[in-house]
Amino acid sequence: MTTSREVRLISRPVGTPTAANFEVATVDVAAPGAGEVLVRNTWMSVDPYMRGRMYDRASYVPPFQIGEALQGGALGEVIASNAEGFAPGDLVSSMFGWRESFVAPAAALEKLPRTTNVPDQAFLGVLGMPGLTAYAGLLEIGQPKPGETVFVSGGAGAVGSVVAQIAKIKGCTVVATAGSDAKCDWLRSRGVDHAINYRNGDLLGQVKAAVPKGIDVYFDNVGGEHLEVAIEMARPFARFAECGMISAYNDMEAAPGPRNIIQVVGKSLRIRGFIVMEFAALRPQFLKDMMGWIADGSLAWEETVLDGVAKAPDAFIGLFSGGNTGKMLVKL
Amino acid sequence: MTTSREVRLISRPVGTPTAANFEVATVDVAAPGAGEVLVRNTWMSVDPYMRGRMYDRASYVPPFQIGEALQGGALGEVIASNAEGFAPGDLVSSMFGWRESFVAPAAALEKLPRTTNVPDQAFLGVLGMPGLTAYAGLLEIGQPKPGETVFVSGGAGAVGSVVAQIAKIKGCTVVATAGSDAKCDWLRSRGVDHAINYRNGDLLGQVKAAVPKGIDVYFDNVGGEHLEVAIEMARPFARFAECGMISAYNDMEAAPGPRNIIQVVGKSLRIRGFIVMEFAALRPQFLKDMMGWIADGSLAWEETVLDGVAKAPDAFIGLFSGGNTGKMLVKL
Repeated sequence: MTTSREVRLISRPVGTPTAANFEVATVDVAAPGAGEVLVRNTWMSVDPYMRGRMYDRASYVPPFQIGEALQGGALGEVIASNAEGFAPGDLVSSMFGWRESFVAPAAALEKLPRTTNVPDQAFLGVLGMPGLTAYAGLLEIGQPKPGETVFVSGGAGAVGSVVAQIAKIKGCTVVATAGSDAKCDWLRSRGVDHAINYRNGDLLGQVKAAVPKGIDVYFDNVGGEHLEVAIEMARPFARFAECGMISAYNDMEAAPGPRNIIQVVGKSLRIRGFIVMEFAALRPQFLKDMMGWIADGSLAWEETVLDGVAKAPDAFIGLFSGGNTGKMLVKL
Repeated sequence: MTTSREVRLISRPVGTPTAANFEVATVDVAAPGAGEVLVRNTWMSVDPYMRGRMYDRASYVPPFQIGEALQGGALGEVIASNAEGFAPGDLVSSMFGWRESFVAPAAALEKLPRTTNVPDQAFLGVLGMPGLTAYAGLLEIGQPKPGETVFVSGGAGAVGSVVAQIAKIKGCTVVATAGSDAKCDWLRSRGVDHAINYRNGDLLGQVKAAVPKGIDVYFDNVGGEHLEVAIEMARPFARFAECGMISAYNDMEAAPGPRNIIQVVGKSLRIRGFIVMEFAALRPQFLKDMMGWIADGSLAWEETVLDGVAKAPDAFIGLFSGGNTGKMLVKL
């Protein structure tokens, strides 16, 4: 009999999540039945979108249940298999994060290649959901053309850092915001033309100074003031890929929206929200492009790693204060 | 020598425009030179978008100049012509509204057919810029499918009334707002499923009661609370055609935007502003479709007519208090 520690939601956060919203419990994991696989997780992901699932409301994914283990992207190794196509030692991805081991039907697992070019955990970051989010949102919604200007908020995060680099690969001028000078330095080291520390204030003034002629594409991870600044700086027919609004995820009451929303009309702006599932069909092309860019050095990434499942709440909470550069991960 | 009365902007409105922002002056109109045409206007249009041109700022059309005659859509009759292709008696449209007579180069005029089905002034309304705005915005941006629900604000206005009727022609459920019970009655007489008098308050509650399952398309003429309600009621992948936001045109400081803008992400909303010029190429198809719908009775319209160029400021100011049902016109 295997035992597994798992992280449960024991109360719904009000405002910013705290350690008190979570507990770590130990459970028994049965042997795999017919068609099932026993997996020991090696890495798990924490992502800003999980905050939305902590509210008790209908959305594109069901809410987390109180007293139950949380869910999220994870990588693991097959320990025992009662299912065709899976053998001990296989690398698999699943949505059974926030726990050390689990048994699941084979259909809930995806077998991943073992590559020599990238560490396994890249499949939770640049080669996983955040990477595809960046790739699809920028290319399909943003449709950047060479010479255009792309503005990305949360530019040093798991999604934003990929957006910024793909925009450079596509021949754009890139202005990206981040929450520390160190993150801005990293962005500059990756070729980003204008890296702005939004904590220095006067965001509109900083963006205007960087790209006085305005922006053609905005990739939004932050919302709030960033969105208002993007509307203000948008050139006619600019495209807005609305990926997330982390600045609002912990709001206890709804904040006012952008005061300049009226410019959507006169500038013929195109603002489009999306969830990465919409673009699942792009995955083969995405993996091919990304592997190529990684191999030729045009795409790199950072990770912030915490150790042990008990640290998962800290990792998650850290997302809202910018505790991560690049992908926030928990090593199990 | 012909004389012409014209309406000039003598000061930029602060807040809602008043009669004091305008003056009527009489000018001499010279005989047409080579390639020029003398036109006597018979009808002129006042439109909400003109408010934007009264601010001194860059936009998609240049601002009106203080002390000069205003401009806008007009219909007139050719009185004298020194240009090939134009003869006395021809019906022409131009942007030389707000005046009784003018001389212009032939290139600034468009010759219109004299039809027996529709009065001339329809070319300023259902068959003109407002009609094309409705047609293109609804069909190209809204992309309504039969059985879907279309929400239109300002449903009894020049644009909204055409949107509501085309949506019915396309097999949609239509919910439209207007500012009086009489306007709502007219909308119901045109087959609109749910006509809502927004002055009765609780707009969200009224829309929710009418279409509890939500909306697939929103055609926005109003902005403000209407936009917030539309976001709240939007179903996943809903399309927003952002045509105008008349509720904000006279704002003296920027009002907060929609407090629920974050739903753009989770619902994968597509919000797209537009100016009718973008869709100029659709005009032949638009005229063909509209003529057909008028002939078979599926499209009708209302007009609100004031008499004489001196009334043009009143007509324009009346747009902001809902003084019009259907197209607001001045007969010259």
